[in-house]
Amino acid sequence: MSADIAPNAPAASPVQKGLEGVVASDTNISDVDGAKCELSYRGYSMDELVGKAGYEEVSYLLLNGSLPAAAELAAWNRELAGHRPLEAELLQTMERLPFGDPMAYLRTVVSIMGLRDPQAEDLTRLRSQSISLIAKIPTIVALFDRLRNRRAMLGPRPDLGHAANFLYMLHGEDPSPEAVAALDAYFVLLAEHSFNASTFAARTSVGTQTDLYSAITAAVGTLKGPLHGAANTKAMDMLKEIGSEDRVDAFVKQTLADHKRFMGFGHRVYKGEDPRAKHLKRYAEALAAKGEAKWLRISERLQQAVWDAKKLAINVDFYSASLLNYLGIPADLFTPMFACARISGWCAHVLEQAADNRLIRPLARYTGPKGLQFVPLNRRASPTAG
Amino acid sequence: MSADIAPNAPAASPVQKGLEGVVASDTNISDVDGAKCELSYRGYSMDELVGKAGYEEVSYLLLNGSLPAAAELAAWNRELAGHRPLEAELLQTMERLPFGDPMAYLRTVVSIMGLRDPQAEDLTRLRSQSISLIAKIPTIVALFDRLRNRRAMLGPRPDLGHAANFLYMLHGEDPSPEAVAALDAYFVLLAEHSFNASTFAARTSVGTQTDLYSAITAAVGTLKGPLHGAANTKAMDMLKEIGSEDRVDAFVKQTLADHKRFMGFGHRVYKGEDPRAKHLKRYAEALAAKGEAKWLRISERLQQAVWDAKKLAINVDFYSASLLNYLGIPADLFTPMFACARISGWCAHVLEQAADNRLIRPLARYTGPKGLQFVPLNRRASPTAG
Repeated sequence: MSADIAPNAPAASPVQKGLEGVVASDTNISDVDGAKCELSYRGYSMDELVGKAGYEEVSYLLLNGSLPAAAELAAWNRELAGHRPLEAELLQTMERLPFGDPMAYLRTVVSIMGLRDPQAEDLTRLRSQSISLIAKIPTIVALFDRLRNRRAMLGPRPDLGHAANFLYMLHGEDPSPEAVAALDAYFVLLAEHSFNASTFAARTSVGTQTDLYSAITAAVGTLKGPLHGAANTKAMDMLKEIGSEDRVDAFVKQTLADHKRFMGFGHRVYKGEDPRAKHLKRYAEALAAKGEAKWLRISERLQQAVWDAKKLAINVDFYSASLLNYLGIPADLFTPMFACARISGWCAHVLEQAADNRLIRPLARYTGPKGLQFVPLNRRASPTAG
Repeated sequence: MSADIAPNAPAASPVQKGLEGVVASDTNISDVDGAKCELSYRGYSMDELVGKAGYEEVSYLLLNGSLPAAAELAAWNRELAGHRPLEAELLQTMERLPFGDPMAYLRTVVSIMGLRDPQAEDLTRLRSQSISLIAKIPTIVALFDRLRNRRAMLGPRPDLGHAANFLYMLHGEDPSPEAVAALDAYFVLLAEHSFNASTFAARTSVGTQTDLYSAITAAVGTLKGPLHGAANTKAMDMLKEIGSEDRVDAFVKQTLADHKRFMGFGHRVYKGEDPRAKHLKRYAEALAAKGEAKWLRISERLQQAVWDAKKLAINVDFYSASLLNYLGIPADLFTPMFACARISGWCAHVLEQAADNRLIRPLARYTGPKGLQFVPLNRRASPTAG
């Protein structure tokens, strides 16, 4: 299939299932230090960025490699705001699609955007296509929710920043400063995470020199899985199932007895607590102080109880759930919210892969039968006769 | 992001760019022996299968692990024929989509099928969803071509086999026995090829426990790349550029002088000639005997000249190009034709991955700056001032 030419690998290579521990490439985008439980983008740790740089600044950092100067950021903001509206024809198509699973809808709309772009295959346009997708994906998610609820569609407001505009488009009213700060921090914290499954799917896709829309469509569909992006929805489902703080201990006992998973706990790479979790918790606390404290109380008690019982630390999904819930975002939009943030990381990785491409094509070890001889149909035993 | 729990890998692991030589999993589906240049499905080599088993039989073999008995094959054929027609609502949506790049169109329609399936996320339905996709993807490709050419849409004919029905739906007339035999052999030969980039993207996707439509959408978008499925279109472009047999030698000389690639030559895994190539050539010869011999003559001379000049062997794309061209299939549908065949392999791999799943999540080695301190916007040097 590939026009690539390279020698075959030694047959005796070990099987590395799930590619666990395999270092698939160098990257300059983010550093996930699993042993120290640290995450940094382009050299800046989460502690340096969160609450200081907004999502627009961080998306610039991820795509361009350094923080923007004031004039560069102003131009970047204008570019993002200019790309937020959707074309009228795309809106018409969106209105006619079934309002099924939100991630399936988002995956479909991204694919249609690629079908509609006559220059989709022009790899010199990867950067401008990326900016357009970073700007438009929140618009698509907000409009999806309004369309399925038969509410009037609202256009993006160029006077609002990325997070504020999303909340305005979803809810139809000016968001509070606390809500904007929380969503902005969420977007920053979820923007990028090295070779997670969706990013790796995007890089595998673009490794064939396919277009950006194909790569992002692959990433959205991969993020959709419950072992990846959909874990935040499942974490919220779990909090709702518990329902009140006094039921946490019984829930933990039952889950342990049933040998079931606690949603929002554990991570393949981080050995301890996910470095994003404490920041998400802080913003969720600020929102809880102005609203219903219940979800935060359940979360805190559950965090402690699971730690006591299994020494299992929380991951990024755990406080994402209550944070997004406090923002009035429906639980089935949590995974699309993840996509709204991660689109910057996906695009940065597509650009990095394309700049120094090598087709991603591992081997498999064949373990089935060998050397079988074909038996004509009329001489095959039927299952009942056999 | 993942709820998977596992220790981190040693930091000193080597970087395995493009995962070349990395054995990512065991598989029972196909054996690609790069050193011997052999390919077998479930233990049957191409020499055993081609011309003996039809595509329906091979798709059964790939999904179920063994060749069907007569009654099983009859039931399988009925199931495929029953799934070939598209629902009226999907057809209406297809009529309204822009008739842009054929692979972007196919990617979009598969995504819409997932959006329309209320049980898309039910992983116990992976097998029935697979049969439906194997049956419907050729229907989508044929209808796309008729729609974009404003020709009447034709429904599938249950009295025809998989290959014959496709040719009928595309051309609107009963195909010749030679044409059916050639396309059937093409479908068989392209049905499966272990961990190529599109199959690996599908497995990475479903490793998050996402749905089949997400995985196949990812695979279609990945196959779309010129380093993968689109190479067959590029091989045809090359034959057309050469145009006549007497221009082959000059073309080879010029391509060598320009340090450009010969399309349809070389393979990352096979060290010599692709084991599918000779079969494709044989069927292309049978078609050339009844039609225009030119494309085959150009191909044969080019194959020899490139071998003489660079000791570079042909791959699956080389004779795919003339075979599909002889069948009257437009060159921009060659990659969708690849998808019509490969859908069986993709689905078999999704089933295998789901049956013994492990999240596919490699590591990357971070090579960028570390420990940077955040500088507030008003203290950053502007690019011109710097």
